[in-house]
Amino acid sequence: MIARLSLVLVALCTPSLASAAQPEPPVSKETAKCLGCHEAATPGIVADWRASRHAVTTPEKALLVPQGSRRVSAATVPEPMAKVVVGCFECHGQNAAAHKDNFSHFGQKVNVIVSPNDCRTCHPVEAEQYSHGKKAHAVGNLTKNPVYHALVETVVSSKDVKGGKVVPALPADEANRAESCFACHGTEIKVKGLKTVEIDDTPVKVPDLEGWPNHGVGRINPDGSLGACTTCHPRHGFSLEVARKPHTCGQCHLLPDVPALEVWTESKHGNLTLSLDSRTDWDEVPWVPGKHFRAPTCAACHSAQLADKDGNVLAARTHDFGSRLWVRLFGLVYAHPQPKDGDTSVIKNKDGLPLPTTFANEPASSFLIDANEQAARRAAMGKVCGSCHSTSYYQAQFAKLDHTVGESNRMTLAATQLVQQAWKSGLADKANPFDEPIELKWTEQWLFYANALRYSAAMNGQDMATFKQGWWKLTSNLKLMEAEVSGKRK
Amino acid sequence: MIARLSLVLVALCTPSLASAAQPEPPVSKETAKCLGCHEAATPGIVADWRASRHAVTTPEKALLVPQGSRRVSAATVPEPMAKVVVGCFECHGQNAAAHKDNFSHFGQKVNVIVSPNDCRTCHPVEAEQYSHGKKAHAVGNLTKNPVYHALVETVVSSKDVKGGKVVPALPADEANRAESCFACHGTEIKVKGLKTVEIDDTPVKVPDLEGWPNHGVGRINPDGSLGACTTCHPRHGFSLEVARKPHTCGQCHLLPDVPALEVWTESKHGNLTLSLDSRTDWDEVPWVPGKHFRAPTCAACHSAQLADKDGNVLAARTHDFGSRLWVRLFGLVYAHPQPKDGDTSVIKNKDGLPLPTTFANEPASSFLIDANEQAARRAAMGKVCGSCHSTSYYQAQFAKLDHTVGESNRMTLAATQLVQQAWKSGLADKANPFDEPIELKWTEQWLFYANALRYSAAMNGQDMATFKQGWWKLTSNLKLMEAEVSGKRK
Amino acid sequence: MIARLSLVLVALCTPSLASAAQPEPPVSKETAKCLGCHEAATPGIVADWRASRHAVTTPEKALLVPQGSRRVSAATVPEPMAKVVVGCFECHGQNAAAHKDNFSHFGQKVNVIVSPNDCRTCHPVEAEQYSHGKKAHAVGNLTKNPVYHALVETVVSSKDVKGGKVVPALPADEANRAESCFACHGTEIKVKGLKTVEIDDTPVKVPDLEGWPNHGVGRINPDGSLGACTTCHPRHGFSLEVARKPHTCGQCHLLPDVPALEVWTESKHGNLTLSLDSRTDWDEVPWVPGKHFRAPTCAACHSAQLADKDGNVLAARTHDFGSRLWVRLFGLVYAHPQPKDGDTSVIKNKDGLPLPTTFANEPASSFLIDANEQAARRAAMGKVCGSCHSTSYYQAQFAKLDHTVGESNRMTLAATQLVQQAWKSGLADKANPFDEPIELKWTEQWLFYANALRYSAAMNGQDMATFKQGWWKLTSNLKLMEAEVSGKRK
Repeated sequence: MIARLSLVLVALCTPSLASAAQPEPPVSKETAKCLGCHEAATPGIVADWRASRHAVTTPEKALLVPQGSRRVSAATVPEPMAKVVVGCFECHGQNAAAHKDNFSHFGQKVNVIVSPNDCRTCHPVEAEQYSHGKKAHAVGNLTKNPVYHALVETVVSSKDVKGGKVVPALPADEANRAESCFACHGTEIKVKGLKTVEIDDTPVKVPDLEGWPNHGVGRINPDGSLGACTTCHPRHGFSLEVARKPHTCGQCHLLPDVPALEVWTESKHGNLTLSLDSRTDWDEVPWVPGKHFRAPTCAACHSAQLADKDGNVLAARTHDFGSRLWVRLFGLVYAHPQPKDGDTSVIKNKDGLPLPTTFANEPASSFLIDANEQAARRAAMGKVCGSCHSTSYYQAQFAKLDHTVGESNRMTLAATQLVQQAWKSGLADKANPFDEPIELKWTEQWLFYANALRYSAAMNGQDMATFKQGWWKLTSNLKLMEAEVSGKRK
Repeated sequence: MIARLSLVLVALCTPSLASAAQPEPPVSKETAKCLGCHEAATPGIVADWRASRHAVTTPEKALLVPQGSRRVSAATVPEPMAKVVVGCFECHGQNAAAHKDNFSHFGQKVNVIVSPNDCRTCHPVEAEQYSHGKKAHAVGNLTKNPVYHALVETVVSSKDVKGGKVVPALPADEANRAESCFACHGTEIKVKGLKTVEIDDTPVKVPDLEGWPNHGVGRINPDGSLGACTTCHPRHGFSLEVARKPHTCGQCHLLPDVPALEVWTESKHGNLTLSLDSRTDWDEVPWVPGKHFRAPTCAACHSAQLADKDGNVLAARTHDFGSRLWVRLFGLVYAHPQPKDGDTSVIKNKDGLPLPTTFANEPASSFLIDANEQAARRAAMGKVCGSCHSTSYYQAQFAKLDHTVGESNRMTLAATQLVQQAWKSGLADKANPFDEPIELKWTEQWLFYANALRYSAAMNGQDMATFKQGWWKLTSNLKLMEAEVSGKRK
Repeated sequence: MIARLSLVLVALCTPSLASAAQPEPPVSKETAKCLGCHEAATPGIVADWRASRHAVTTPEKALLVPQGSRRVSAATVPEPMAKVVVGCFECHGQNAAAHKDNFSHFGQKVNVIVSPNDCRTCHPVEAEQYSHGKKAHAVGNLTKNPVYHALVETVVSSKDVKGGKVVPALPADEANRAESCFACHGTEIKVKGLKTVEIDDTPVKVPDLEGWPNHGVGRINPDGSLGACTTCHPRHGFSLEVARKPHTCGQCHLLPDVPALEVWTESKHGNLTLSLDSRTDWDEVPWVPGKHFRAPTCAACHSAQLADKDGNVLAARTHDFGSRLWVRLFGLVYAHPQPKDGDTSVIKNKDGLPLPTTFANEPASSFLIDANEQAARRAAMGKVCGSCHSTSYYQAQFAKLDHTVGESNRMTLAATQLVQQAWKSGLADKANPFDEPIELKWTEQWLFYANALRYSAAMNGQDMATFKQGWWKLTSNLKLMEAEVSGKRK
């Protein structure tokens, strides 16, 4: 490998073999240069790309596909990009002026990070939808919310013991957060300058980035845009199949706080999908229930362009993943109507806290969708369910979810009343609501157990609702809190 | 979609295109009518059925298959049903008089729910076997047993806090139970009358059902029968492949109380099955070890018709899933010989409690299978194991299971002695054995940890037995109980 | 089946049909005899073998394959074995004199257990590498280390309650350990003599073995060798595909103490592998990243022969699975440099304890690899990562791992200080550091939570690091320990 880089440098001075060998589809001369080196330097990336749709079609051809089956949402794509395949430079060379991570690399100006704003050139509708959702705001929704910020600070920070007391290890360490909460939520990528990396004994200058690597859903990119399309369409295949498989959502939506993958897996939908995986056509647009797949994955219900076999649209593709949802199930003290805007840091409840409900579960309604919007979203989701279930059947399921949401909130209210009593009696100190034994139990009540109960009802995985992380935990946790509050148990 | 129903109603007045387009195999005129609407109204269901064996064969042809490979167990199937494929009406039109959920639907009398008694027309042996197993009695075995009833009532019920005490929220809410315990065990489906559903703006009258949707194993159906074949052969594919895949059993047999799926997954059997999934013939009857599959799933050991490659039966198909088992591992305080009858609510132990053992682990032997029957079942399972393992090998495995069963019971007895001491000393109140901190620990000792230890031994997934939910938990839980009883820890 | 054995005995007296029917590839006459019976007696085993590479090639042919693609590492294989396929007798007949489990079986002398020393005939490099790794020493590393021995004795042993106290059930029972810790670590197989087994009513004499069946990585075999190749290449397919699939490592490397499978599954690597399983060429040698697989499994990073598409070696095959690792993440109080030798029972730290660090995290450096060796291993792993990632990218990942290792050790040190304070104050008794409530918490801090945090960073599955078993647990556990030590909570 030692000699590889120098060989490659020679190759760069000769006409590119890569582009010569592949007259169709046309590769831009910039991308051919990239491939000249990276075919040898990072063969896995190149192989991944070569197997992708990006490598074998041009935007011009992609635009000829009829609406409904089309995978690009731009009306036009500017030349010369439209006439070449979507290669290295077409993505890493976009909007160079906006990219603080742009650098000169063997004679070409490239960005390290491809952002949603770059993908927007061909996929503007998806980029726009995404930008309004909660995912795009996943960093600020944690960091700009004092309650959540306190939770993160308390939990994800190294501690020392001094005089028998657990105290924060100082200075606080941002890197821990990037390796936990913000691995999924996204980091802020900062360009600190250039650094030199030794590649096969040759020094190469590359941007020195803070917060990188990261593929979180709300990543703050060096061009100022929010998010990472690669969270779900991983580099460098950008595969629709991968994005539609449950393993993708299952990187973050997991026990104990968001048990979506586990509940789906134990549901009939999960069973059928996993059992019949080999009979599923994962890459079709539109995606036809019954024909292309026999039971839904996350993508079918929450994102994909669904149609019946005659092409009638059942659900239009959306990249605002909450837009078919009327209730927000997870991550907050009480389930409540979805927020109007993806940026939830602006919410203020009656108590002045940046939460969508009060501790007594009174909603901050002006920041949340109203009953009409809830009904519209319910109807939209109903059309998805209606492909395989009778109206009566899925409406009864929705009613069960409504009921369980109420019950889960009631079990959370009971725990909240107990922790409030502990605060009042001096058993615990309210200043930080996340750092004493009874407070930890209160947090688990809503963040883990009530969430799990609701997910079970939403996606029909009721084993979770019973002993695993639902009623058993909700009840026993309450009993332990009661014992602590009463002084029976310390 | 608004116009879809009216289009469909027009279609109903013209000769059915569906049946016209498919002269072979013959579809009954009633089913053709169903398809005329539902092809558009619920395309996913219809597609699922079209891909099924039911859609492409007639009972008459199915009866021509030689015994051993045959999938129907009836000696004969009455005409005209024998000569048409098993379509919508052949199932949903069965035994109309017995069905309280029968209703008139666009001119045909159909049942909402297809019950085991309906499937019995072609599959009488399976229906009969099933009716004697514990699964068919899964509702009554919970509700008619006062101990279990108390556990369910205590755990799965909303609570309020009043005066610092956790109290039941009144009135008690049955819906919570349908969404937890009884999602797997089954609900009782009650017909409350008819209701009107809006489908594409057209009002349609359908039965108003309580306890529905549900696909639990012991569902009490509107025709009085018990169970749901669709639990494992999900609608509307009724697939043998799906029933044989572990994901099906894995909807309910999961951590923390019944970790069958997890133990199997971490076993060599699970590893081989998951690793070689694509090389497995999931749909063959009989199922030949080594030829059709390389390692067993749940179905291979507990249900499927197994034969060697010459057709000699190794194990006859059974739908009484306990019939190859000699010990009952889970769900009760102590493991014990399998009950004689699937209805376990009749059991009474020496202390007069409806449990198969006393708290001191003395078995209620007259209700349990005897040593001869245990030996016979052990031999039956041995024949399954013997396909791939030497006699000496699998007998040593059985001996390990015997030993672990004893050890798990011993660790439960120790916990029982501690909780009894707490009852005696007044630390806890025996009136409800499931609602105080030390009682919760006692319950977890047998319901979660002892069960897990036994499953590990039964199916060779010993990682579970160590730290996950076996010895580590059994021991540390006992130490915590000891500290509570001794007053060292409250 | 009753008549099967006698039929088979007749078959043994006639020319073997099995070998006659299969002139190519040649089966030895000894193996033909085995097949004569076992084709009927254990058809699953025989079918498994027939589908294997062993059944269709001879060592002589295997030796003709060019280096780099070759699957045998011997320079030569002695005749007559080289000219026949690798059948029953070629493995079970090896080195008979060394095997205490050798016995006379229908006229042939066979070993029950095939050991790494038997596989060494064709695979000497793999056997040698394996013998120096930690896996080969997995029994002694537990049993000869007094600290670990105490942990095992305390946890995995039946208990009774006497006078309200939890006491060991006597005599201690070795069988429990074989069914938990030593199922993965390996048992010592002892030959107690011969015993008679009834097979189809015919008595057959076979060795009476203690500790069997077992396929643990450090099994002590009746020929004195250590380990079991069948742990990962299960009988009787000896499949490379199975060994490369994550389910194999996932039999033992699981939550809560070694969450490798879970972290990988929730990583992008896991997502891509599971999503694109059907597009992976699992059986190629060498294994080419990008071409044969799109994302790595355990085997790709830790064991497999990797090359680029031109055949240049990226990583040479190794069966010392720690040899590309510079830090040891799991199983000990603090993460530390890998030990120099697989036999870790020889390690002594400054406090005289057989642990690689002191309780204050001072490493026993003379027993651990030095900085140069660490750098060399880091570079070796970097070459694997470099197939798909830029140098800058994977170096940043390595830096994150370094950081998290430090943070995890700091959180363990804090817990250690608290338990030491409890020992000092008399709240707990240091004599056995694993048997009191606060000691159980201390053990969980390093054995479960700190391990999980490190795995998350090493393999990029950061959901684990947050609420599941990382920071949330590390912090709340510390808070609960603090409350116990302070006397606030008992």
